[in-house]
Amino acid sequence: MKKVAVIMGSDSDLPVVEKAIDTLKEYGVPFEVHVFSAHRTPEEAKDFSVNARENGFGAVICAAGMAAHLAGAVAANTTLPVIGIPVAGKYLDGMDALLSTVMMPTGIPVAAVAVNGAANAALLAIEILAVTDDSLAEKLKDAREKGKNKVLQKNAAVEKQFNTIDI
Amino acid sequence: MKKVAVIMGSDSDLPVVEKAIDTLKEYGVPFEVHVFSAHRTPEEAKDFSVNARENGFGAVICAAGMAAHLAGAVAANTTLPVIGIPVAGKYLDGMDALLSTVMMPTGIPVAAVAVNGAANAALLAIEILAVTDDSLAEKLKDAREKGKNKVLQKNAAVEKQFNTIDI
Amino acid sequence: MKKVAVIMGSDSDLPVVEKAIDTLKEYGVPFEVHVFSAHRTPEEAKDFSVNARENGFGAVICAAGMAAHLAGAVAANTTLPVIGIPVAGKYLDGMDALLSTVMMPTGIPVAAVAVNGAANAALLAIEILAVTDDSLAEKLKDAREKGKNKVLQKNAAVEKQFNTIDI
Amino acid sequence: MKKVAVIMGSDSDLPVVEKAIDTLKEYGVPFEVHVFSAHRTPEEAKDFSVNARENGFGAVICAAGMAAHLAGAVAANTTLPVIGIPVAGKYLDGMDALLSTVMMPTGIPVAAVAVNGAANAALLAIEILAVTDDSLAEKLKDAREKGKNKVLQKNAAVEKQFNTIDI
Amino acid sequence: MKKVAVIMGSDSDLPVVEKAIDTLKEYGVPFEVHVFSAHRTPEEAKDFSVNARENGFGAVICAAGMAAHLAGAVAANTTLPVIGIPVAGKYLDGMDALLSTVMMPTGIPVAAVAVNGAANAALLAIEILAVTDDSLAEKLKDAREKGKNKVLQKNAAVEKQFNTIDI
Amino acid sequence: MKKVAVIMGSDSDLPVVEKAIDTLKEYGVPFEVHVFSAHRTPEEAKDFSVNARENGFGAVICAAGMAAHLAGAVAANTTLPVIGIPVAGKYLDGMDALLSTVMMPTGIPVAAVAVNGAANAALLAIEILAVTDDSLAEKLKDAREKGKNKVLQKNAAVEKQFNTIDI
Amino acid sequence: MKKVAVIMGSDSDLPVVEKAIDTLKEYGVPFEVHVFSAHRTPEEAKDFSVNARENGFGAVICAAGMAAHLAGAVAANTTLPVIGIPVAGKYLDGMDALLSTVMMPTGIPVAAVAVNGAANAALLAIEILAVTDDSLAEKLKDAREKGKNKVLQKNAAVEKQFNTIDI
Amino acid sequence: MKKVAVIMGSDSDLPVVEKAIDTLKEYGVPFEVHVFSAHRTPEEAKDFSVNARENGFGAVICAAGMAAHLAGAVAANTTLPVIGIPVAGKYLDGMDALLSTVMMPTGIPVAAVAVNGAANAALLAIEILAVTDDSLAEKLKDAREKGKNKVLQKNAAVEKQFNTIDI
Repeated sequence: MKKVAVIMGSDSDLPVVEKAIDTLKEYGVPFEVHVFSAHRTPEEAKDFSVNARENGFGAVICAAGMAAHLAGAVAANTTLPVIGIPVAGKYLDGMDALLSTVMMPTGIPVAAVAVNGAANAALLAIEILAVTDDSLAEKLKDAREKGKNKVLQKNAAVEKQFNTIDI
Repeated sequence: MKKVAVIMGSDSDLPVVEKAIDTLKEYGVPFEVHVFSAHRTPEEAKDFSVNARENGFGAVICAAGMAAHLAGAVAANTTLPVIGIPVAGKYLDGMDALLSTVMMPTGIPVAAVAVNGAANAALLAIEILAVTDDSLAEKLKDAREKGKNKVLQKNAAVEKQFNTIDI
Repeated sequence: MKKVAVIMGSDSDLPVVEKAIDTLKEYGVPFEVHVFSAHRTPEEAKDFSVNARENGFGAVICAAGMAAHLAGAVAANTTLPVIGIPVAGKYLDGMDALLSTVMMPTGIPVAAVAVNGAANAALLAIEILAVTDDSLAEKLKDAREKGKNKVLQKNAAVEKQFNTIDI
Repeated sequence: MKKVAVIMGSDSDLPVVEKAIDTLKEYGVPFEVHVFSAHRTPEEAKDFSVNARENGFGAVICAAGMAAHLAGAVAANTTLPVIGIPVAGKYLDGMDALLSTVMMPTGIPVAAVAVNGAANAALLAIEILAVTDDSLAEKLKDAREKGKNKVLQKNAAVEKQFNTIDI
Repeated sequence: MKKVAVIMGSDSDLPVVEKAIDTLKEYGVPFEVHVFSAHRTPEEAKDFSVNARENGFGAVICAAGMAAHLAGAVAANTTLPVIGIPVAGKYLDGMDALLSTVMMPTGIPVAAVAVNGAANAALLAIEILAVTDDSLAEKLKDAREKGKNKVLQKNAAVEKQFNTIDI
Repeated sequence: MKKVAVIMGSDSDLPVVEKAIDTLKEYGVPFEVHVFSAHRTPEEAKDFSVNARENGFGAVICAAGMAAHLAGAVAANTTLPVIGIPVAGKYLDGMDALLSTVMMPTGIPVAAVAVNGAANAALLAIEILAVTDDSLAEKLKDAREKGKNKVLQKNAAVEKQFNTIDI
Repeated sequence: MKKVAVIMGSDSDLPVVEKAIDTLKEYGVPFEVHVFSAHRTPEEAKDFSVNARENGFGAVICAAGMAAHLAGAVAANTTLPVIGIPVAGKYLDGMDALLSTVMMPTGIPVAAVAVNGAANAALLAIEILAVTDDSLAEKLKDAREKGKNKVLQKNAAVEKQFNTIDI
Repeated sequence: MKKVAVIMGSDSDLPVVEKAIDTLKEYGVPFEVHVFSAHRTPEEAKDFSVNARENGFGAVICAAGMAAHLAGAVAANTTLPVIGIPVAGKYLDGMDALLSTVMMPTGIPVAAVAVNGAANAALLAIEILAVTDDSLAEKLKDAREKGKNKVLQKNAAVEKQFNTIDI
């Protein structure tokens, strides 16, 4: 199976990024985690990106905050799908990172997820691998089923709590 | 090759969406175009989504404006990668569509691109197919090369125009 | 009397939604509470909506955060008045939920209230039922009177605290 | 049948408001149109609101721009459902009117629709009347069916234009 | 001397408003404090406003949050200068109250100060009274002098702390 | 009568500012118009401000765009009431000028009006002079009456156009 | 004299950038103009940046729109002062470019100017060179003087137009 | 070596500004710290600015919040490079200070850094001095190297933590 790369711009992003790592583990998808900064270690970020496809990666997840250039910098150096997680900083509630991640110019796409949406970034990467991996697709379907059942149970609990007398 | 679906919430989105269609044609990727509204034809949107994988699709592009629910509604019914194009409406400059598209809850990812970023949506879909399609990956690489050369030529022209005397 | 449905997209919305439930209880309006997710249990949300009118509902309140599609998804499947409560998430202060709720396309209206404005959502539902229910209209009028008196008392207290010497 | 009031804060809002009037006509719902300004003719706005219920109204639509106080001022004086249309001004793209309309304090609800969303405001009013008017409910259902068919036709046209060769 | 009215839309605004009251006391300007709600006690708000001039007021300060209509509602009923304090609510950081206060339509001006800027609202009211009151103008000038000296002292302290060695 | 100063940061603001001038003329209030830039002619701006009170001014209106510092710079040098008109630039719809004008620190108040709200700036200045000028107060009251009648006439026209058959 | 580099991310930015070029010409400061894209020609951008200091540059101006990474990408590869011009795109009024340019992480500073503020970017570069170049500093001072005189003349014209009768 | 001035609008900005001071100390760059308020001590701010160049300064850093005029006020009185730090206040997350700092009119440039970006402001000032100071340029290069190594170490730690088993 292709691997998924999880790159963060700073190790301070790790608490956010861990949900992506957990999700990948949950699905048994091989992954690598790196700290590459678009601004402090641009060479390393570039080298990784240029070689990502031949090194067996199928998708690259990039998490960064503020003027979040990491996903764009990686996308500039690979034609693998790059998924950007805008990380909320102390100010502006992640709007800076969101716009810096999603408003990419024509030719160099980045797939943006929600502010701090690390779990979804991993799921998107898994969906990408699952396009040609039926067993992974099955797992995704099962997880959706579980997610659905979890909501159904919560619904049942809420219905029981509030509706017994009134209905 | 897997097909790419291009769905718009209204045929008024067609001028935006055409850049996605043109890009898919350019790469010789098979595609289908549909008008499904998350609010006016939700059943059709759902039926398409539920069956998209077995009908041979590898990615679904959804373009919608305002409270842009289309990508989310499709993503709720498939585990294929869903790419959302936030379409700018008359007011709020696409910020409404951007937030409605990108801020998805955990479990149901959508890959958002820039406001009206239809060409990139198509490129992202192609990148997804290219993960396991070397010939497509090659085409993407060539296009990057061409994109690079185009910028280099523009640079040469600008340098010629402005730098002849000063350097 | 017609019933009011109170639907939340996730049981994490319950602390917000409880003010709607309390208000409905206060007015003696029959209600049902459900957890239906536009993305995780779209079928259940749809089934409820399609049958809401014949099941005796007069209005549907939907509370959801982030890319808040619930109210729109319900409104797509019923012509009952649908009231949307934009729930504030961790980031963006509810602006994402507000725009996702209020910027609905022509043909499928949603009545949006303030961010986390659950009590007003219930009052709006009660006002809707009260259009043809004089006793309920009377209760609303009484509540306004009480609300007015509460402000008058606060005014009296504040006037007493600050104005004794100066006037 | 109860009447619907359509109030605009200034006759400059008429081009926006006309879509509400047209929609009410289309459904054969009796209506009245007025220009009442929350700031320039507050007495008239209040008198209308205080007497709206006994004058046979079932819902009040208010359209206003900038610091859009009209819907709130009307809602302060009636317990009928009040629907607010935030009208986009020259600056700020209607965000000022949206927040002034939707962020109402607890106790005095306003049902906000999209910026310049006049047709939906009328539909919401009709939905409110239709809660206890089966014939009106039927018309709404028919219109949804027509709206659906219109999208289906557009879909067919788009599919024909783009999919003939590729599928 | 003319009096200054300090009106708040809810007694929950009192912690903000107290800085205005303290400032008025500091300057010995006679004032009255009231809780009038544009939505819950609109009649009281109106009655106060209509009679404010003949009751000896020279300026009216209005503090309100969310869809902050109070200043506008008062301004609609008096030609005295009305000063609006946008009060920050739990969400949107006061932007809703700011736009609801400042974006008034032509003909009914409101003088907006900063979010929660109660002290400045009082100072503005005092400046208004001081236009024709030399003794009050003198006090304002003295306060500016004191404010200046306070900054100069802080500057001296900071300079002492940081500059001793480097300069 | 005290004079009103109308200062613009650049003569490109004149089309906006003219509505203030026209309003002052309409009321027969003496005024002076100046172009003083907070950044390009700060000395002139300061000299004017320092001497404004003794030169017979009762209020100063300042119009500026972008990082609109003019009103604040004038307010720093006078204790006369300073009214700021945020002028919309080519970008950001006046939000930059609005925040630069209204968010003043404690001690140096500026009275902000709406984006490009020049007529209201003049009315506010006139209201300030009218606090102790009964004849001016009477004119303001008359203008309100005229404004009211204008709305009433528009209302009559709109009622005639739309309500003849339906009522 | 050190040279100033003017880099744009796309030749479509040239109409904005030309004001920077004109300003540099006006001051007789040697410059070079280039089109380097952070995403399409990242290598060229990097090579230029790494060598900029030894190639005789004293400051680098970067103009880019949308997710404007150019200034940050250049700053990552040089310790010369990098000035970023956020270029307004079709949507979001330049807010995306502004936040992408200015919200740089600690360690890699970028000096942001206003949206499309190309002339000021050039002036800032000139000010940087003038720190150790008295003749250039003199030119800047002269230009300020001219700027001041221009405002004074406009002031005189405006004063003549409006103040002749009233003062 | 030229000195760097660090000016704050209020001593409450000191916790933010200290990172700039620490950075300057770290590089051995001579500096002065002052509290000058654009609104409370405009004369002192101006006097400092007018004489800054001849007093041996090479750059001026200004930190201010809300309607942050300090950097602009200083820039109006010197042709030295002025760097503005927008300081986040209690409301609006620094967006007010950012726009007030960065949106300067043509002719009077300010170099804006990120909200509360004090360390980068100092680095920018050092970069400016380093244009003609090779030893300082060397220090900057070393710091970049150290910054790079710090990220590399963090990367190594993260890789060790997460990648040992999976790769």
